[in-house]
Amino acid sequence: MINRKIIFQVMGLLLLIEGFFLGISSVVSLYYGQSDFFALIITTGICIVTGILLRLAAGNAEKYINKREGYIIVSLVWVVFSLFGALPFVISGAIPSYTDAFFETISGFTTTGASILNDIEAMPKGLLFWRSLTQWLGGMGIIVLSIAILPMFGIGGMQLFIAEVPGPTPDKLHPRVKETAKRLWGIYILFTVAEIILLKIGGMNWFDAVNHSFTTMATGGYSTKQASIAHYDSPFIHYVIIVFMFLAGTNFTLSYFALHLKFGKVFKNEEFRYYLGFVVLFTVAISIVLWHYEGYNPEKSFRDSLFQVVSILTTTGFATVDYMQWMPFVVVMIFALMFFGGSAGSTGGSIKIVRVTLLLKNSYQELKRIIHPNAVIPVRINGKSVPAQIISNILAFVVFYMMISIISTIIISSLGYDVETSLGAVAATLGNIGPGIGMVGPAENYSHIPVFGKWFLSFLMLIGRLELFTVLVLFSPAFWKK
Amino acid sequence: MINRKIIFQVMGLLLLIEGFFLGISSVVSLYYGQSDFFALIITTGICIVTGILLRLAAGNAEKYINKREGYIIVSLVWVVFSLFGALPFVISGAIPSYTDAFFETISGFTTTGASILNDIEAMPKGLLFWRSLTQWLGGMGIIVLSIAILPMFGIGGMQLFIAEVPGPTPDKLHPRVKETAKRLWGIYILFTVAEIILLKIGGMNWFDAVNHSFTTMATGGYSTKQASIAHYDSPFIHYVIIVFMFLAGTNFTLSYFALHLKFGKVFKNEEFRYYLGFVVLFTVAISIVLWHYEGYNPEKSFRDSLFQVVSILTTTGFATVDYMQWMPFVVVMIFALMFFGGSAGSTGGSIKIVRVTLLLKNSYQELKRIIHPNAVIPVRINGKSVPAQIISNILAFVVFYMMISIISTIIISSLGYDVETSLGAVAATLGNIGPGIGMVGPAENYSHIPVFGKWFLSFLMLIGRLELFTVLVLFSPAFWKK
Repeated sequence: MINRKIIFQVMGLLLLIEGFFLGISSVVSLYYGQSDFFALIITTGICIVTGILLRLAAGNAEKYINKREGYIIVSLVWVVFSLFGALPFVISGAIPSYTDAFFETISGFTTTGASILNDIEAMPKGLLFWRSLTQWLGGMGIIVLSIAILPMFGIGGMQLFIAEVPGPTPDKLHPRVKETAKRLWGIYILFTVAEIILLKIGGMNWFDAVNHSFTTMATGGYSTKQASIAHYDSPFIHYVIIVFMFLAGTNFTLSYFALHLKFGKVFKNEEFRYYLGFVVLFTVAISIVLWHYEGYNPEKSFRDSLFQVVSILTTTGFATVDYMQWMPFVVVMIFALMFFGGSAGSTGGSIKIVRVTLLLKNSYQELKRIIHPNAVIPVRINGKSVPAQIISNILAFVVFYMMISIISTIIISSLGYDVETSLGAVAATLGNIGPGIGMVGPAENYSHIPVFGKWFLSFLMLIGRLELFTVLVLFSPAFWKK
Repeated sequence: MINRKIIFQVMGLLLLIEGFFLGISSVVSLYYGQSDFFALIITTGICIVTGILLRLAAGNAEKYINKREGYIIVSLVWVVFSLFGALPFVISGAIPSYTDAFFETISGFTTTGASILNDIEAMPKGLLFWRSLTQWLGGMGIIVLSIAILPMFGIGGMQLFIAEVPGPTPDKLHPRVKETAKRLWGIYILFTVAEIILLKIGGMNWFDAVNHSFTTMATGGYSTKQASIAHYDSPFIHYVIIVFMFLAGTNFTLSYFALHLKFGKVFKNEEFRYYLGFVVLFTVAISIVLWHYEGYNPEKSFRDSLFQVVSILTTTGFATVDYMQWMPFVVVMIFALMFFGGSAGSTGGSIKIVRVTLLLKNSYQELKRIIHPNAVIPVRINGKSVPAQIISNILAFVVFYMMISIISTIIISSLGYDVETSLGAVAATLGNIGPGIGMVGPAENYSHIPVFGKWFLSFLMLIGRLELFTVLVLFSPAFWKK
């Protein structure tokens, strides 16, 4: 039996939290004297009242959440947050269609950054702030989910690869999760504040610095400018954002160690080394092309390549240039990068470096197994051999990822889009990247997608963000049995 | 130590066989009084002389071939056959460039069917016959390789899924392989003859009936007509070819059982059921689109969809229509189909149905494993559970397949091709299909690809045909150690 009360109780609490942040956004609106104050404060009220009603309906629920309730709550949070979070856009009239508003909001909470806005600068500041805040909150949520909650439920096969943050001895799970979450949020907030200060120094105003820092740390990629980071003609700003995108795509427990000066632990981590390796590899390849064939100067070749590689790899989706204008060769590389993703335990999405790494290692080991069929040749990571069930889990993950990509591409192309755009829209939403290739490239947006397509892509953002299994089990008959 | 003598001996024998079939082609040329007789008979001589010299150089080699020599021989056969097989095209002047001739020949022997010919009907008949024969021989070779030789060496992870043809008790491997090969070739020849007769009844002349039957049974797809099967405006011919493409993409051991009226064994085979399922699923989907949106009548919608689905799924590559003219939606589906492939133990290429099936099953089982983490939930096929090392082998195969596809797409796009064409050319050559999408679609060909690209795609055809591992181990340092 699913315990509805506990679900009501948790959702009630979370809606109160959403109300709180909507309240902050309305204060921002008030401060800047913007027209969206009314819409934001109304939604604040709706969230708080609904939250209280849900908690009253829950009554005295037990404190214990079982696994199945856990799955339901996790999937519900992102959906319910987006359903409510979309309201101020509609109420204010800034985004008249609820479909568009929902798309923009779930794209925020899932830290995707796919937008339907054709004139971002025309949006009132309160809503822009709320839009960036959805990403920042989504990023915070995903760190706790991937480092503390999913491993607790044994999902995603990632438990092995996330070094645990030292905390109190786990006699009870509950305080352990809380403690871990606190430390990780500490780092998240610290990095955000550091980036705000650096962007301000680089010449952004406070408002833009705060917004871009929120969306960088979430690897979300919403900008307050229509031209994204290309709006700022400042190498300093570009490099600052590169650094923080890279940090946001790094396992936050490694950042914890780095901040405690345990750099050995960081560089011994194989996922981190592959992450760094992929950045270097793709940056060098693309830099050479830009320098030789597109006539960029060496610094700009390097900076633009590095920016775009880190932006796509970490699934942020900021742009300093419209890469659709580059050679098809580079577009294919960028498309391929969309399937790598950030590190486990980061705010990055997509398949994730650790999975890609293990797949590559397993394939290489298989060649050895073929030559020496009687030898036991395990796949190792960080010096430990990976159990067969983890390999099988990763296999299942990647197969689902590819299957969903293929079927979704067929569905999007059935709306009349060409192959490139369909592939791009799917890879960029399922991977929580934002801008894709083709007609959803960095110079364009998702406003032209028909209503059905927007809801469908919203669903892709959700399942991509929640590591597929978390949502997919809900569709499995076995989940609902007994 | 690699025993060179045994390699020389086997290659010598195989060259004599190639010479024999070139001799047959020159007889065909003579019969039709064609200009290519001289080129064919010269190459016959070259093959026979080289074969004899190699056997003399080998002297009294041992009869025993070890595993490593096996790998080398298998990879060499396809390359050496193509190197010699390309000669008559160049000598006759029909294909002046050796690169083009090699591409056309390895595309034949690998049963790919990617062509560089801009005017097939202008080719002399001897060369056309030789071109079809390369596919027929390649198909024969791959059946023996996949059913008898690769499982003997334990490669490909397929040994479990190929029901063994009843034969003499295996006290020695050698007679067993011979016996199996004989029975399978018997079926191959039987089907070829049956198709020739049916195509003749359908209105083809003998020459075209023989050629098309050769290339159907090999799932090769070379046609003697520039327009491929679209040249024949006969539903009967289309349906005959559909049936034989389907048979060619079926595990030949199942055909053996079917011919012995053991239909229960056929329909109990899970790979066969999935194979049939995929054909039905994609045919229905595409038929509906053609009927509703492209204005085809119901019979033509059904026939054209079925033809193209079976042609791509079995990796034959015959066309009755230019599917690049259909909606992008259908093009995406056809592109997706390129990754399915035929059954294990058929002449079809690509990833293969049994691997796709196991991947899908493993993913579905993983959802159950997440819900019941303590239960042991194996993947089963044909009622037996599949060992973890087979799953890991299939994972490795698919990862290599995808990795090679992505890197190759980047390489082809660096030659200046758009994303669609690059993806299409790679999927269609690595999967041994032939025509791809974009600028290598069914109405076009590969003649416009630059020289480097032709050699590169030739390499893809080779590794695709030999199930990746067979060739890739040769590049692994572990292979050459000690």
